[in-house]
Amino acid sequence: MKTVEEYFESVKKLKPKVYVAGEKIKNLIEHPNTRPAVNAIAKTYELAFKPEYKRIMRAKSHITGEEINRFNHVARSIGDLNLRVELAILTSKLIGTCNYRCAGCDVFVALDSITYEMDKKLGTNYYERFTAYLKYVQENDLACSGGLTDPKGDRRLRPFQQPDMYLRVVEKNDEGIIVRGAKLHQSGAFATHETIILPGLSLREGEEDYAVAFAVPNGAKGLTYILQETPEDAERREVKNLNYVGLPDYGVRLTCIMIFDDVFIPWDRVFMCGEVNFTRKLVWKFASTHRMVGAACKVGFGDLIIGATQAIAEYNGVAEAPHIRSKISEMIYLNEKSRACAIASALKGEPTESGAYFPHDIFANVAKLAAARGFHEMIKYAIDVAGGLVVTMPSESNLENPEIREYLKKYLRGVEEVPAERRMRMMKFLQNWVAGPHLAGAWHGGGSPEAQKLTIYALSNLKELKALAESISGVDKIGAK
Amino acid sequence: MKTVEEYFESVKKLKPKVYVAGEKIKNLIEHPNTRPAVNAIAKTYELAFKPEYKRIMRAKSHITGEEINRFNHVARSIGDLNLRVELAILTSKLIGTCNYRCAGCDVFVALDSITYEMDKKLGTNYYERFTAYLKYVQENDLACSGGLTDPKGDRRLRPFQQPDMYLRVVEKNDEGIIVRGAKLHQSGAFATHETIILPGLSLREGEEDYAVAFAVPNGAKGLTYILQETPEDAERREVKNLNYVGLPDYGVRLTCIMIFDDVFIPWDRVFMCGEVNFTRKLVWKFASTHRMVGAACKVGFGDLIIGATQAIAEYNGVAEAPHIRSKISEMIYLNEKSRACAIASALKGEPTESGAYFPHDIFANVAKLAAARGFHEMIKYAIDVAGGLVVTMPSESNLENPEIREYLKKYLRGVEEVPAERRMRMMKFLQNWVAGPHLAGAWHGGGSPEAQKLTIYALSNLKELKALAESISGVDKIGAK
Amino acid sequence: MKTVEEYFESVKKLKPKVYVAGEKIKNLIEHPNTRPAVNAIAKTYELAFKPEYKRIMRAKSHITGEEINRFNHVARSIGDLNLRVELAILTSKLIGTCNYRCAGCDVFVALDSITYEMDKKLGTNYYERFTAYLKYVQENDLACSGGLTDPKGDRRLRPFQQPDMYLRVVEKNDEGIIVRGAKLHQSGAFATHETIILPGLSLREGEEDYAVAFAVPNGAKGLTYILQETPEDAERREVKNLNYVGLPDYGVRLTCIMIFDDVFIPWDRVFMCGEVNFTRKLVWKFASTHRMVGAACKVGFGDLIIGATQAIAEYNGVAEAPHIRSKISEMIYLNEKSRACAIASALKGEPTESGAYFPHDIFANVAKLAAARGFHEMIKYAIDVAGGLVVTMPSESNLENPEIREYLKKYLRGVEEVPAERRMRMMKFLQNWVAGPHLAGAWHGGGSPEAQKLTIYALSNLKELKALAESISGVDKIGAK
Amino acid sequence: MKTVEEYFESVKKLKPKVYVAGEKIKNLIEHPNTRPAVNAIAKTYELAFKPEYKRIMRAKSHITGEEINRFNHVARSIGDLNLRVELAILTSKLIGTCNYRCAGCDVFVALDSITYEMDKKLGTNYYERFTAYLKYVQENDLACSGGLTDPKGDRRLRPFQQPDMYLRVVEKNDEGIIVRGAKLHQSGAFATHETIILPGLSLREGEEDYAVAFAVPNGAKGLTYILQETPEDAERREVKNLNYVGLPDYGVRLTCIMIFDDVFIPWDRVFMCGEVNFTRKLVWKFASTHRMVGAACKVGFGDLIIGATQAIAEYNGVAEAPHIRSKISEMIYLNEKSRACAIASALKGEPTESGAYFPHDIFANVAKLAAARGFHEMIKYAIDVAGGLVVTMPSESNLENPEIREYLKKYLRGVEEVPAERRMRMMKFLQNWVAGPHLAGAWHGGGSPEAQKLTIYALSNLKELKALAESISGVDKIGAK
Repeated sequence: MKTVEEYFESVKKLKPKVYVAGEKIKNLIEHPNTRPAVNAIAKTYELAFKPEYKRIMRAKSHITGEEINRFNHVARSIGDLNLRVELAILTSKLIGTCNYRCAGCDVFVALDSITYEMDKKLGTNYYERFTAYLKYVQENDLACSGGLTDPKGDRRLRPFQQPDMYLRVVEKNDEGIIVRGAKLHQSGAFATHETIILPGLSLREGEEDYAVAFAVPNGAKGLTYILQETPEDAERREVKNLNYVGLPDYGVRLTCIMIFDDVFIPWDRVFMCGEVNFTRKLVWKFASTHRMVGAACKVGFGDLIIGATQAIAEYNGVAEAPHIRSKISEMIYLNEKSRACAIASALKGEPTESGAYFPHDIFANVAKLAAARGFHEMIKYAIDVAGGLVVTMPSESNLENPEIREYLKKYLRGVEEVPAERRMRMMKFLQNWVAGPHLAGAWHGGGSPEAQKLTIYALSNLKELKALAESISGVDKIGAK
Repeated sequence: MKTVEEYFESVKKLKPKVYVAGEKIKNLIEHPNTRPAVNAIAKTYELAFKPEYKRIMRAKSHITGEEINRFNHVARSIGDLNLRVELAILTSKLIGTCNYRCAGCDVFVALDSITYEMDKKLGTNYYERFTAYLKYVQENDLACSGGLTDPKGDRRLRPFQQPDMYLRVVEKNDEGIIVRGAKLHQSGAFATHETIILPGLSLREGEEDYAVAFAVPNGAKGLTYILQETPEDAERREVKNLNYVGLPDYGVRLTCIMIFDDVFIPWDRVFMCGEVNFTRKLVWKFASTHRMVGAACKVGFGDLIIGATQAIAEYNGVAEAPHIRSKISEMIYLNEKSRACAIASALKGEPTESGAYFPHDIFANVAKLAAARGFHEMIKYAIDVAGGLVVTMPSESNLENPEIREYLKKYLRGVEEVPAERRMRMMKFLQNWVAGPHLAGAWHGGGSPEAQKLTIYALSNLKELKALAESISGVDKIGAK
Repeated sequence: MKTVEEYFESVKKLKPKVYVAGEKIKNLIEHPNTRPAVNAIAKTYELAFKPEYKRIMRAKSHITGEEINRFNHVARSIGDLNLRVELAILTSKLIGTCNYRCAGCDVFVALDSITYEMDKKLGTNYYERFTAYLKYVQENDLACSGGLTDPKGDRRLRPFQQPDMYLRVVEKNDEGIIVRGAKLHQSGAFATHETIILPGLSLREGEEDYAVAFAVPNGAKGLTYILQETPEDAERREVKNLNYVGLPDYGVRLTCIMIFDDVFIPWDRVFMCGEVNFTRKLVWKFASTHRMVGAACKVGFGDLIIGATQAIAEYNGVAEAPHIRSKISEMIYLNEKSRACAIASALKGEPTESGAYFPHDIFANVAKLAAARGFHEMIKYAIDVAGGLVVTMPSESNLENPEIREYLKKYLRGVEEVPAERRMRMMKFLQNWVAGPHLAGAWHGGGSPEAQKLTIYALSNLKELKALAESISGVDKIGAK
Repeated sequence: MKTVEEYFESVKKLKPKVYVAGEKIKNLIEHPNTRPAVNAIAKTYELAFKPEYKRIMRAKSHITGEEINRFNHVARSIGDLNLRVELAILTSKLIGTCNYRCAGCDVFVALDSITYEMDKKLGTNYYERFTAYLKYVQENDLACSGGLTDPKGDRRLRPFQQPDMYLRVVEKNDEGIIVRGAKLHQSGAFATHETIILPGLSLREGEEDYAVAFAVPNGAKGLTYILQETPEDAERREVKNLNYVGLPDYGVRLTCIMIFDDVFIPWDRVFMCGEVNFTRKLVWKFASTHRMVGAACKVGFGDLIIGATQAIAEYNGVAEAPHIRSKISEMIYLNEKSRACAIASALKGEPTESGAYFPHDIFANVAKLAAARGFHEMIKYAIDVAGGLVVTMPSESNLENPEIREYLKKYLRGVEEVPAERRMRMMKFLQNWVAGPHLAGAWHGGGSPEAQKLTIYALSNLKELKALAESISGVDKIGAK
């Protein structure tokens, strides 16, 4: 397993084409908009060596029996699912933003299951290929991201009606395939060693070119990454002291668009190619795990938001006011509800034929939906308790100017024992959560709430519930026509 | 274990003083307002003999090793907690109202734990007494209710400031104690064999007389039961054909006030007497289990409400309309969320020193709060989908009158294959849930949401979360004064 | 104008065929299920003679210039609309249930406008007929109800696909028309002098038989009324002392199904017959007024619910607790929000060509939607504050039994100065609102929330708002293709 | 009245000490963080000369009878209140951020009323002074801001317990007073000609030094402005083409802290000095108007958010999907509800003794609360409809780089006729609203929701509602003790 230093060394060797705000980035580690993602991923290496976190951060490979980073592990038990939830909460709590490895991990579980089933049904050898690839990843302790979401263009049209708006195979040959298209919302892909690509939706006959799953190394020929642009990203480019932005090392989640301009993928990295009938289940199983994990991720954030809100309440001297306590209670309720749902989905999980474990499907979707809605509610309460200063607070950089330093120190302190600097920094930290891109990220990451609602509806057994109501009410004693 | 017939025989022997609407009830089995409770309890005996439900309905006594009804079991493992949740869901689904045994069961677990701890600390012998009593209950397969809520009078006053408004010991002697007071909201106590009484709040020094826990048999001398009065109870007294009220056998939950007019309790039935320092934990542990169970109970109801709503949507021909599907999705979400929380509280449970298992405290409170709020939301959607007929539907008894029968059959049918009678009965069934006492019951049963909020706040670790936020934001790098 | 005594005299002469629970009612005034509606309507006569309410209760006829009951008035100014809102709030507050005349009144305004427009466009003489009829109503000071909702059967089918499921003309001749069908959810129609019928939806070509509006006198040949059946109706049939049911004179809203079994309507009472192109606007304009009024009605109820909740909080000694005050604040907020929306819809109203005034369409729909949702939220808070006793309280009739009277007086009092009887009665009063049919009534009366949402969407100017966003963002500087 | 050019000229003469991010700003018009406020204020001058907006933008001075900018007008009629609402909506819609003059305007109305009442009661001559000052403002067509919020420090302490944390008079002499302290959350004060200061809370005896109201010109000696720091402010400092930030001319609201380091105020600019008994009403009346206006302001923003959401739905080809329409319906409902409440508060307004008109107090508070909560709900729906791209969209500046331009144009278009640039810009525009400081601004501007709840509770007549419930339920027939 890699130490954090070894991870940094490995990043130095990466040479992806990455652009932000129209400029090509020269150095992943030095640029203020890529460094935070490198830091976050580094944390996943660092934590794996901390004795108190080894239980969560490490797992035993079902392939080699060796200890590996849990982000590269395919869950083989209920215990693994439970620890997968703990892993997501822990990293969210200690990083305060995306760890950039969840989607990759969750793709592994889905592929383990579906490649196995394809082989069994179709006589292909995807499972062997995939297992060999995963072994390579585990043995080299690589950080992997996962990519699903296609640009979609006009959403009324199917993939085949708007070529390239969904990533597709444009050529196959003896060595491999050539793919073209793009994947959106890729969290930190530019800073991972590998990205594993899946189709982003259920495909139908005639859409075989779009039914493609494969692994691509960072910086492969033809691959371009273009970063998102939020104001937080600009602020980070400008600020002289990162402590002033509230979350110095990590900041907000960094996503990018990955563009595949005819990228070659050798066959040993291709895990699905044309099997449209398996796309629904592949997407579904990925979604199930990723929604459990997405909920857990928000719970970790929730812990930070609650902690920051409580801190400010104390700084302001209002922590004991009944309406403040009531609001903080609501925040705790919302966060613990999401936590409970994520845990239930793990503990009621079940294996598929390959031996990979998946969470309880309905609960996983419920957890993600509860977490998205809970996040939205939580920021309301956080804003309420923190007060308007959460957005009107001047920058800490003002404290470096002696003309105004004393004014701010005098007027921005809270209770006597809390100096203005602490209050200013904590406000800035909370601003990250309540006045930035996190809400939209929580809402749509892992699929939109509408997707979860549809899934929950599809999975429910309305026929049985209807029969139950008809029985207990005595309706079934009356003949239907 | 008693068969359902044996239970009915045992009820015939009970001679409690029960009043409803000003009249004394002569026969528990025949009176329309006590019969439904007898029926519901009977169902808990009947189900215990059904092969498909034995796994849930039965447990192995930790005292005797014999098979017993799970309602008389003290959970000894995570598996037991999980089955306790399943038990509550199952009985709610199949009875459609209270089973009247949950509080009794949950009192047993709390007493098992606290009597053990009292003995250990104080050298008393409550645990032995309690175990002997529980063995008696198990061996005779008795149905037990549990009572906590005191009348409270002026809520600004403590118990000692308004004697009798909280149940208390008025005399102690060699044989036992004499108690006076009342317990409110007692679900079905008049139809159970035994009621176990606990204090309803944390008590302080000087309030020793109120710190009393004991078991009292049905119909003990000095004991009076006065039933609630909801319109549903009046309807049941009047209606000629119970099928017309929507839930023929069980109806809405039947509660009563139990009045203790100097009731004698022998020492072997006394499980706490004066130990104020243990009341907080006793109430707390009861609440924890009972909130998990209360949430599960509402999930069972939720399944019926969803089933009824879907049935009506189909009868009306609108089940496929997008806005109907969206609303039913929301109902499923709400119900599954409560289910997930209840399950998480069970699966993350832990034992106390006596070996009794309790659910995860925060999750149990979260589950109950989610279930109460979810119930409130669910009835909104149920009403929305069902339409105004859910309250404006005429009675099925009109169908017996040939002057109007054909009018109703003609005009009240839904889609062609669903005759009016089915639609009328299902509407009446749903009316029970959306226009009756269930919402208030779901809200306050097991403690009000405000109690859950206070508990969640008290249990949370705000100090740690604050420290976490101060660390990750870098606030802790700035010295506090 | 009729005095209340004259109204009672007039009711004695009514001989409608009315059924409840399978029995034909012999005497409208004496039967416990029709008397409350008679009482409520009587109140609208009584209030019109109270000096303090004349401003609200009376209006000046635009036909005769005489003073009339405002329920028979067609609004001719913004002031009239404002007083229409006040009328609905006042009667709801003082009756505590439906006044049974709102729909009739709101039908008049819609017909005034649309008959005028039909005549102008089609050369018919509906307006003259309608005005003559309205003059007759005003001069005889008749109480009128209005009927729109058809049974609908299979909601996927149009009227012509399921004859009779929508009320229709089955014959026309020189004297008039013969109609067949039914109207649902008719509030108190059996106790009004007249009912005015409109189509319940927008009709299309080929559905001319269903495009019919007319007035029918109470008890016309072929007309049958079948009452709803809620538990509250059964309770009222049984109880010996009406004071014990919480709202002694009026109870919950009483609706019925009106069945038209080939009822003859002379031409001078027919106000639309076949003009499908005007049905949309007719329904729409009725809905607009009725939604403003429906919102106002709920505000009156809200005042009572808030008052009852505050009363119980004081009885319990908790009125000053912060969380109780917070919940009551929320209730006031919810109710005042609905009030503000209803008032805004009135004060921004506008006339149509006939001179009749209608509220602001969007605001009227917003008001109704806010009121329905607000009602749902309010009962949650009312239940929360009142506690479980709101459904577990025994009947006051128990106080007549000396065996248990003193128990209840002792244990059911609240703060010392509030005797148990007051608390019991107020709980029963609140039970009416929070555990009965009112929520469903508030939800669907005047059209379901889904209808309001569709109307709001249809009325909004999304095109303009989109253009505004495109302009201010600078998007419109970029050429579209 | 000033033309927009004259306003710009007047700004060039202003020389305030303004700091942002630690740097002193040299030129208000050129600096990217002050220019947007200048632009917004300029718009209020520009619009006053547009024929279509004169009705809203101009009023007739009650002092001089001359036409003035409505922002300097004291409402003298219901019509004025109605136009005050329209003014706020219009400027919000056309500026897309704060116009920076509302607080100033609302302070004028409050001072007009309270100075009049102070003089009448105390024999002071504040009203004359104030009127002379207001005449000067009107005749010179000055842009004014208003300041209330003090830093507060430890919120458990009263002003006199923590000197300077609430702005106060430190010296009085023949010429005037000297004030010290700070005012927070001052929107755009640095770019207005004048700021009028009021106390921020109700004061008690012994706190006379804090009961001070006065006007201070921009850049007075001893006055310092320190700007807020949001990421949006940093982005604006960096970006080369302002079109790329979504709201090119105006951006997000710009607030500052105003620091009064012993600023001298001559007596003719002092409008209250020590009259603690009038502070409650002064704050209250300001709040009433400002909450009505604050609600209206959010409605204008709401129109833009709805427009942007609809635009993106169309760009994505999903505008006709039922769930999208449902969500947009909800947005319209939320916004129109706030609009209706603001209008109702205006149209039910009333004058005080001075002749100044104020909105209906409860409705004004309800409107603000509805608008804050509605804003929070609206951004949820906007995010839902827009999708994750609202935060993951790369900057338009990438389009200037030929290496990646075509990728973005290809992959970021929506439906065929909408080029990627339009979609990118609209996403950025919406990002402003849903991932920036607006929510917190909407929440706390004009006072926090908790303040509105307290005000609503204090204003309500619970005693009367309780009596009503006791009467209609028959409770009052039972004697209280």
